[in-house]
Amino acid sequence: MTNTERPVDHGSIDNAMTSGEGPELRELYRDFESANLTPLWTQLGDLMPMHPQPKAVAHLWRWSDLYPLARRAGDLVPVGRGGERRALALANPGLGGHAYVSPTLWAAIQYLGPRETAPEHRHAQNAFRFVVEGEGVWTVVDGDPVRMSRGDFLLTPGWHFHGHHNETDQPMAWLDGLDIPFSHYTDVGFFEFGSDRVTDYATPNFSRGERLWCHPGLRPLSGLRDTVSSPIGAYRWEHTDAALTQQLLLEDEGQPATVGQGHAAIRYVNPTTGGDVMPTIRAEFHRLRAGAATPATREVGSSVFQVFEGRGQVVLDGVEHPIDKGDLFVAPSWVPWSLHAETPLDLFRFSDAPIMERLHFNRTHVEGEQR
Amino acid sequence: MTNTERPVDHGSIDNAMTSGEGPELRELYRDFESANLTPLWTQLGDLMPMHPQPKAVAHLWRWSDLYPLARRAGDLVPVGRGGERRALALANPGLGGHAYVSPTLWAAIQYLGPRETAPEHRHAQNAFRFVVEGEGVWTVVDGDPVRMSRGDFLLTPGWHFHGHHNETDQPMAWLDGLDIPFSHYTDVGFFEFGSDRVTDYATPNFSRGERLWCHPGLRPLSGLRDTVSSPIGAYRWEHTDAALTQQLLLEDEGQPATVGQGHAAIRYVNPTTGGDVMPTIRAEFHRLRAGAATPATREVGSSVFQVFEGRGQVVLDGVEHPIDKGDLFVAPSWVPWSLHAETPLDLFRFSDAPIMERLHFNRTHVEGEQR
Amino acid sequence: MTNTERPVDHGSIDNAMTSGEGPELRELYRDFESANLTPLWTQLGDLMPMHPQPKAVAHLWRWSDLYPLARRAGDLVPVGRGGERRALALANPGLGGHAYVSPTLWAAIQYLGPRETAPEHRHAQNAFRFVVEGEGVWTVVDGDPVRMSRGDFLLTPGWHFHGHHNETDQPMAWLDGLDIPFSHYTDVGFFEFGSDRVTDYATPNFSRGERLWCHPGLRPLSGLRDTVSSPIGAYRWEHTDAALTQQLLLEDEGQPATVGQGHAAIRYVNPTTGGDVMPTIRAEFHRLRAGAATPATREVGSSVFQVFEGRGQVVLDGVEHPIDKGDLFVAPSWVPWSLHAETPLDLFRFSDAPIMERLHFNRTHVEGEQR
Amino acid sequence: MTNTERPVDHGSIDNAMTSGEGPELRELYRDFESANLTPLWTQLGDLMPMHPQPKAVAHLWRWSDLYPLARRAGDLVPVGRGGERRALALANPGLGGHAYVSPTLWAAIQYLGPRETAPEHRHAQNAFRFVVEGEGVWTVVDGDPVRMSRGDFLLTPGWHFHGHHNETDQPMAWLDGLDIPFSHYTDVGFFEFGSDRVTDYATPNFSRGERLWCHPGLRPLSGLRDTVSSPIGAYRWEHTDAALTQQLLLEDEGQPATVGQGHAAIRYVNPTTGGDVMPTIRAEFHRLRAGAATPATREVGSSVFQVFEGRGQVVLDGVEHPIDKGDLFVAPSWVPWSLHAETPLDLFRFSDAPIMERLHFNRTHVEGEQR
Repeated sequence: MTNTERPVDHGSIDNAMTSGEGPELRELYRDFESANLTPLWTQLGDLMPMHPQPKAVAHLWRWSDLYPLARRAGDLVPVGRGGERRALALANPGLGGHAYVSPTLWAAIQYLGPRETAPEHRHAQNAFRFVVEGEGVWTVVDGDPVRMSRGDFLLTPGWHFHGHHNETDQPMAWLDGLDIPFSHYTDVGFFEFGSDRVTDYATPNFSRGERLWCHPGLRPLSGLRDTVSSPIGAYRWEHTDAALTQQLLLEDEGQPATVGQGHAAIRYVNPTTGGDVMPTIRAEFHRLRAGAATPATREVGSSVFQVFEGRGQVVLDGVEHPIDKGDLFVAPSWVPWSLHAETPLDLFRFSDAPIMERLHFNRTHVEGEQR
Repeated sequence: MTNTERPVDHGSIDNAMTSGEGPELRELYRDFESANLTPLWTQLGDLMPMHPQPKAVAHLWRWSDLYPLARRAGDLVPVGRGGERRALALANPGLGGHAYVSPTLWAAIQYLGPRETAPEHRHAQNAFRFVVEGEGVWTVVDGDPVRMSRGDFLLTPGWHFHGHHNETDQPMAWLDGLDIPFSHYTDVGFFEFGSDRVTDYATPNFSRGERLWCHPGLRPLSGLRDTVSSPIGAYRWEHTDAALTQQLLLEDEGQPATVGQGHAAIRYVNPTTGGDVMPTIRAEFHRLRAGAATPATREVGSSVFQVFEGRGQVVLDGVEHPIDKGDLFVAPSWVPWSLHAETPLDLFRFSDAPIMERLHFNRTHVEGEQR
Repeated sequence: MTNTERPVDHGSIDNAMTSGEGPELRELYRDFESANLTPLWTQLGDLMPMHPQPKAVAHLWRWSDLYPLARRAGDLVPVGRGGERRALALANPGLGGHAYVSPTLWAAIQYLGPRETAPEHRHAQNAFRFVVEGEGVWTVVDGDPVRMSRGDFLLTPGWHFHGHHNETDQPMAWLDGLDIPFSHYTDVGFFEFGSDRVTDYATPNFSRGERLWCHPGLRPLSGLRDTVSSPIGAYRWEHTDAALTQQLLLEDEGQPATVGQGHAAIRYVNPTTGGDVMPTIRAEFHRLRAGAATPATREVGSSVFQVFEGRGQVVLDGVEHPIDKGDLFVAPSWVPWSLHAETPLDLFRFSDAPIMERLHFNRTHVEGEQR
Repeated sequence: MTNTERPVDHGSIDNAMTSGEGPELRELYRDFESANLTPLWTQLGDLMPMHPQPKAVAHLWRWSDLYPLARRAGDLVPVGRGGERRALALANPGLGGHAYVSPTLWAAIQYLGPRETAPEHRHAQNAFRFVVEGEGVWTVVDGDPVRMSRGDFLLTPGWHFHGHHNETDQPMAWLDGLDIPFSHYTDVGFFEFGSDRVTDYATPNFSRGERLWCHPGLRPLSGLRDTVSSPIGAYRWEHTDAALTQQLLLEDEGQPATVGQGHAAIRYVNPTTGGDVMPTIRAEFHRLRAGAATPATREVGSSVFQVFEGRGQVVLDGVEHPIDKGDLFVAPSWVPWSLHAETPLDLFRFSDAPIMERLHFNRTHVEGEQR
């Protein structure tokens, strides 16, 4: 078991407070229960562990398993009002069948058949999509049609209406990420149905949000008020790819640019603040050169990765897994993970880091660095 | 049932996506399960409700029930290492026996017998104490002894060592508030044992933190770096009482000062920022004149109130309860609550509002105000 | 006189305090002077006017006058150590011969002859360059060579080493903007000589800063610490032009995008914060359709405009001036200005607005809007 | 001359650019002038010095000189509309007769005779008062009467109406501090006359602002919106004295509390933010034990000190001056200053540090510390 490192644990401490016995004590515990009270001293070790002890486990889902299941759902389950989306959620094996990839995050494969429309709705939960392959779907966000293509990262921040439609004769599948588990647990969700069809079937190459906001270092004078979430609806692959390419070229020239040797990375940000794209979700893209590796890292909070291109290995909680295009894996809180690239390796990553940082619970431990 | 108000709900919508039947579909659902996948369309209504539908319920605990149980625990259960604290947590009846007053908050009665010491430890979880009656205990926070007396609000922000000792021949009980449920769910907790005895048995009237920081509008030049949590360890009753008294006097003079007619209120704040005392917990004190009332209010996030003095009623989710000194009640997310004072009524309140605000999930609905 | 609008002014008030006479009073005033004291009551009207009464006046400099003078300086004055730059500062006629375009801002035409080098230095003052015509010069900022071409906006924030060199057989001239007057008045300047030659004579198309930072909405993971000034050294014309073009196209489509009818505009920003590029200087680019106009506007703080392309009129303090490519004009604090475009009209603008906003002195009055 | 320390200065550098001669060059310089242009290269050393070279000089004014002059003004000059205030400004000998103690700051002795009223007005300039001796005057700020007594620090932030009245048969004098020079130079001032008499002649012990806001760590729920300037109108001496006393007692106990050995200090802050009381002015109070001293310090920006109690020396720009109760002195930008206490020494201090910090021009050099 790799997930311990501190010498002293609750388990090794005598709990004098729980050693008592006798009828009076048993009656007291019964009276606690009738009064809706629970003693701390009997469950401290579970409630307040020495370090995070997530129920969620590290797990990997293979694209080669996921995609055929999504296609079968496409054949058998119609998309429409009520169920709203043909989305298959990654269910963390440690979380008892809940449709949660971690306690905070939701990750699902959404599948839209040829010519289908997913109806419009809005919710307090924050959502994004990441496209590992395919094209031909437009997502319409508050009336702004946004093209979805391979490598694009697309936002639907909380309380924006959105629906999708497939303009082609081919199905399309992509990754959906949301904060549904966090929102459900903390009771913050609101939901509203919108139009049964999308409100605009136009298929422009670029959304209005991009046309206003995707000019580097330039802010429209009509948009001087900072927004909670990014006003950019689509972060295009060509920009992500160019940014990573430049970082590695700069590294070749001996300039500081990468986050580690052979490891280029960008964070998707809200241009009005320079901070995370949404209040609960961080999104990044990482590129490793063939042969590059990352040190084993533990972080408070959970992360989900999807391989975009290339092959390599991930070591999750001490177990090595081969990874290939489309594969998804989750690193729960404080579980160590490291990557190794066999070929050039591109990965999309998202996490709940903004929650941890805004509430000051964030901690990181990188193997080989001073604590 | 008062907790619905929107005309359209998931329940009233046909879910075309779940209407199918047949062996192929059953096989597909089985294959989802083996692949650790869960369809969204079968559980959308639960996962993403039209408005918060907390499992936690509105509930009230009477001081006249709580205190005798705490005293019996004092007789039967020794305080000490391992169990650490003789604390009885309010267990929300809707949360299945968990020691949680709400999904985010912990509220407990802690009881320390004559001459007892609760050993030192520290944890990432944020904690406070509020003293509804009694005196004679000192809490020692990072080596700084802090007197605890009736009406005082005392802080132990995350990762500060703390222990308590009772200097008298009388027992003492108080309210502990923490973010244990939130921290447990999101896997952010760290814990460390400290000294088995407190590190300083001095019993000064004022802690060093107060002596440095409790001068209104004055900041020590040795403390110019903002801190995540308040550097004030003890907010004394005399200041709280004076602030509320002045607000009502100013109201009498026709000046803007109160938050509503006959309703004075203060928020405890971090003097380095003017914001909440800790990143996850808001604390306030409210005073209503005899006869005053508050409008029915729904808020995203949960709140716990303790009556400090006086009598009146609380209406929780449409049900009226009489309230008296020491009584505690919880209003879960989006459950309407209102107060009515029979006598002058003083209440301590704490909530998870900083979580909601920092993550931009906060919403409030006050009866009679425009939405 | 247009620069008054309030009915009551100091001038129309009897100053009872200055009406006295007599030997005792004259002696008192003499004694004030020997004691290095000055009475307020004799100069209140000047010191604390009813509204800003700048000594700086609205003024316009024609490019057709400026450029030939710069070229003559190029023939007669060598560039080099000591004088450092062949820069001709716009001297506001109201400021008594000081090389100040306004009390806060410096605007100068810098001229670099064929194959010349301006030596490296650094200073606390913040600087930028804007290129109204020409190409072939590289500015080297902390060792990063930055190409300068028509339409580019280039930064040299405080305390960065910089020098320039002309790689061609043609001279080049551009606009320099700095906060020299403000820095001089407030005594904040530091200066240090660097290399007599630039430290890198490479002539790349894109600077390292651009390669790291000019990907819309993407932030390098190696650059997560916010910076006081923008890390983007060059804001290229192609991006500015595209942003303005899109705003006008969106306006054509009936979408909100422009700041006024027929008036597109962007602000250059620091991508780490979304705020101004430097702590003291705001920079923007404005485009008016032929026939478009702006309402008369007064602002606290001063602005300088340079026509980049097109023809039209500016009304400054009630006086209309024709404007053409390269022309520069200044609107001092609270002096009304408005623009009218005869042809499509492109203008670069910079101002001291960050000073006014950070110190909360900013006010704006737009003709026809509610005060 | 103490105000230089860098080995290389402009003066020691050959300025090749100014060495030319001849009729063509003379004509060019004449043409510059007619075109309202000024070459940089002839004045670089003055405009952009190696370090701040303030025209303002270090200077000390003795209370024993100031107060009698104020009293004579009280006898000869009536206070009233037009002149508004009987205020004697400290005129820095280096600033050519301007009523400026430094380029940014105004410091004046205001004198109000028995039963006099200074009429109400408001202005964009930020103002405070500090009372070195006396009592009996109330300043009425936006209708809130504020008692003025020895040791109190009182605020009149920009654009708040204010007037004063003396309720006694004794005159009273105090220190006024404002940002008049900065505001005048940058053209940001607005001014408006108010009532000729104060709007409320009540003489309460505590202002409404104090009654709402002067409870340590407590914020009224009716005041949750942060304010640009502090809502506290009066910082009372009893609090300042107590804070300093506690710091020295804590130092005696071996606790970190003081800013240097034997040197207690507080900053007056805005309780809604923890930051400076007004956007342009910082105010502090310092207490040195008898025998204590401060290291020689240079700072960007200017400071004014007033001795509140005690005796000692200040070394200003290398020159030692004895200091006594009421004496005022100014340390201009980058001029070194240090204090030595003969008796216990209390000093009030104000400065333009918020301007420097908000614009990122702040630098400090303390003798004996690493640069």
